[in-house]
Amino acid sequence: MAVLLLIVSFFMLFPIFIAMYYGELELIRFFLIPMAGVLLFALTILLLTRKTSINLSTRDAFLLVSLSWASSALVGCLPLYLSGSIPSFTDAFFETMSGFTTTGASILTDIESLPKSILFWRSLTHWLGGMGIVVLTVAIFPLLGIGAYQMMKAEAPGPSLDKITPKVTKTAKILWFIYLGLTVAETILLMAGGMNLFEALTHTFGTLATGGFSPKSRSVGHFNSGYIDIVVTVFMVMAGMNFALHYRLVTGNLRRLLDNLELKIYLSIFVTATLIIAFVLYGRTYATFGLSLRYAGFQAATILTTTGFTTADYARWPFFAQTVLFILMFIGGCSGSTGGGIKVIRITALFKQGIHEMKYLSHPRGVFSLRLGGGSLKKDTIYSISGFFFLYLLMLLVTAFVVASGGNDILTSLSSALVTLGNIGPGFGKIGPTLNYAFYPDYIKWFLSFAMMVGRLEVYTVLVLLNPKFWRG
Amino acid sequence: MAVLLLIVSFFMLFPIFIAMYYGELELIRFFLIPMAGVLLFALTILLLTRKTSINLSTRDAFLLVSLSWASSALVGCLPLYLSGSIPSFTDAFFETMSGFTTTGASILTDIESLPKSILFWRSLTHWLGGMGIVVLTVAIFPLLGIGAYQMMKAEAPGPSLDKITPKVTKTAKILWFIYLGLTVAETILLMAGGMNLFEALTHTFGTLATGGFSPKSRSVGHFNSGYIDIVVTVFMVMAGMNFALHYRLVTGNLRRLLDNLELKIYLSIFVTATLIIAFVLYGRTYATFGLSLRYAGFQAATILTTTGFTTADYARWPFFAQTVLFILMFIGGCSGSTGGGIKVIRITALFKQGIHEMKYLSHPRGVFSLRLGGGSLKKDTIYSISGFFFLYLLMLLVTAFVVASGGNDILTSLSSALVTLGNIGPGFGKIGPTLNYAFYPDYIKWFLSFAMMVGRLEVYTVLVLLNPKFWRG
Repeated sequence: MAVLLLIVSFFMLFPIFIAMYYGELELIRFFLIPMAGVLLFALTILLLTRKTSINLSTRDAFLLVSLSWASSALVGCLPLYLSGSIPSFTDAFFETMSGFTTTGASILTDIESLPKSILFWRSLTHWLGGMGIVVLTVAIFPLLGIGAYQMMKAEAPGPSLDKITPKVTKTAKILWFIYLGLTVAETILLMAGGMNLFEALTHTFGTLATGGFSPKSRSVGHFNSGYIDIVVTVFMVMAGMNFALHYRLVTGNLRRLLDNLELKIYLSIFVTATLIIAFVLYGRTYATFGLSLRYAGFQAATILTTTGFTTADYARWPFFAQTVLFILMFIGGCSGSTGGGIKVIRITALFKQGIHEMKYLSHPRGVFSLRLGGGSLKKDTIYSISGFFFLYLLMLLVTAFVVASGGNDILTSLSSALVTLGNIGPGFGKIGPTLNYAFYPDYIKWFLSFAMMVGRLEVYTVLVLLNPKFWRG
Repeated sequence: MAVLLLIVSFFMLFPIFIAMYYGELELIRFFLIPMAGVLLFALTILLLTRKTSINLSTRDAFLLVSLSWASSALVGCLPLYLSGSIPSFTDAFFETMSGFTTTGASILTDIESLPKSILFWRSLTHWLGGMGIVVLTVAIFPLLGIGAYQMMKAEAPGPSLDKITPKVTKTAKILWFIYLGLTVAETILLMAGGMNLFEALTHTFGTLATGGFSPKSRSVGHFNSGYIDIVVTVFMVMAGMNFALHYRLVTGNLRRLLDNLELKIYLSIFVTATLIIAFVLYGRTYATFGLSLRYAGFQAATILTTTGFTTADYARWPFFAQTVLFILMFIGGCSGSTGGGIKVIRITALFKQGIHEMKYLSHPRGVFSLRLGGGSLKKDTIYSISGFFFLYLLMLLVTAFVVASGGNDILTSLSSALVTLGNIGPGFGKIGPTLNYAFYPDYIKWFLSFAMMVGRLEVYTVLVLLNPKFWRG
């Protein structure tokens, strides 16, 4: 964990460069203070333990993953809080947890008034959180002799159908290069559309992490550019894909890419939702079908991939279009992507199982195999997925209950729960696309921060810690 | 099916008596016409087939159960339609399907303007549907030599932990007597509270079937009586219990009654929800805690048991109280009750499995047994329950999607889906407790009728017919 915090604080060098460039010299110390603190902490820990190799049990790994997120948010929020950019500690923690969990839910009411370096760090937490932290820890920890496979198991971004390479360290490095490559590509493409480097980088961080923080109050809509909308839409959809597939793409193994069941369903959902919304918007909200398609595609992508950028105030769209977006909030990205939510593969597996059960009911003596993609789906996998699905929905209702206890209406409460647990960001009602989370009382902000972590770490990882049995034996 | 329709039409004698008593003689023919039609149909069928014993396959049973509900609604809606009480056939079918499925969703805008005999028949469809039809068919079919066990299996009102008696016919008769006994008891108690026989009977039908149709526009709230509210609340809660437990109650086997896990959880949910709502209402909506408790208890019971009577316009309650009711809509009654919804036992089983999975994750080499109540929970049971749970939620979103396509807001669409699929009745938004379903276009009314049937017949039973594989082999 000390190593992890060192890495997080190392990345604070980048906002320091930004501060230098934009002449925000008085802010530099607010990055240096947490960096120094973490360094002191890490050195103390490393000196005290002296061990160069640790055997992590599965339980240790669970604890470590949750602690990683919590402590990163704790350290990461210090620049925001100490600099006075976000005067409330609760707000600063919420914002940073929203960053590291790639949620994109913000308490900021006037984003543009904040210093550039602070906004850059805010977006960088997305980039680090989205895929960074775990991949980094997976790539770095093995060098320290820490058993890393348990980490991947505990982290488990959805049940993955394909394994890239058996060796975790190598996998992490490959993923890291893909991530970096996509970052460079999107940044260049956005700059070609007229963004400056600062704007291009921050929006790229938000896109690839499926985060959604923008340094502009009107989000991507600020640029009012069809080209930029399309670039961001395409990269959001790519960020919601299993990164193992990007690896295939790079190595030219296209056949298996197109064979991927989850990808096919994911893209079908995206295209179907976009078309339905576009037909609803056409002639009502936008005059041309092209414009309807552009705004429908962007908003469908942002919700399905759990990013949270916006280019339109969908709260003013016809209700049917809104309901389609609401339904997308239950799905999420692909496994092994930076997207959150329940994930396409889980929905697919549960659907297949439902059909399987119906076959069995009508032909009790029949023998039916339950297949998913290339392989057969084991009962234990279904068993685990159904447990996840139920706990996810239970957590959803519990979160809605907590939000409602603050006197909020059903739609606001339910969508707050949906978009924090699913790491989406904007929702409906009082947290609609043009609004923010500032008005919630502190206890709701803390609970929503917890919900973001529960959602990001695939529910089990965090909830398992609440089970007294976890701490025994 | 011919026998079933004969039974349904036989019960049309009762509204004929009501018509005679209240001098609505011109309406009698509208009950006699369908009766004659059914008699002709049944005689033709029975003469044509001549068989006295039929072996029903599981598939036949599935088809029969779905057809039973559809044909009952078709025959049952004729008096409403032919008499002109409900001029639209779609509306009449919707209302009758809502009756037979014990949903209680109504398209009527001015209930009191309808003739007494028509209102009586409307409430009687609840009583028949709630438990009647299937129990009747189970009790009658074996006399005709039709294998009845498949029926019970296909009907399956939730996974039952206890079997009353192994013999289905005997079971059906016992359930029938319990149902009749409760009907007599509640009717007498309601008359003691000042209702006339007509009012007492119709409200009893609505209570015991967990239906919710009332011959009064203001539902049970019309009587504005604490005594009546309490009687109805108690009987709603009893109707939401497994009827096997009532049998225990009668035979004095109290020990096992209190051992019943589902009952304990069901009552805990009811008491907790009532207390939370009462505390929210106290001082805000009602001046005394007693009043708050009375209205909270009634509304919690009506939603949890999926009845749908109301005594208060909960749409004007504080949002937190509304959200608690909204969450209750996801639960439903006990297995083996007349209540709808997902059912307490399924929620319990899925929760236990979630916990079980977490134990396994933190102690991968541990051996944990998954127990529910007295017995252990088999993986196949969980497998089937999780399939049900997913299909239920999928059907929920599909229904919400269809409702939204008519230009309705998210809350109206989602709650319309929740309360028709869960057989509850009133919801939120445009179908709130003081409103009705009249404004929906016909295609939505047909789809909601379908959703009521899907929910009432435990999802699988109806959806299995949509699977092309069902019709093969």
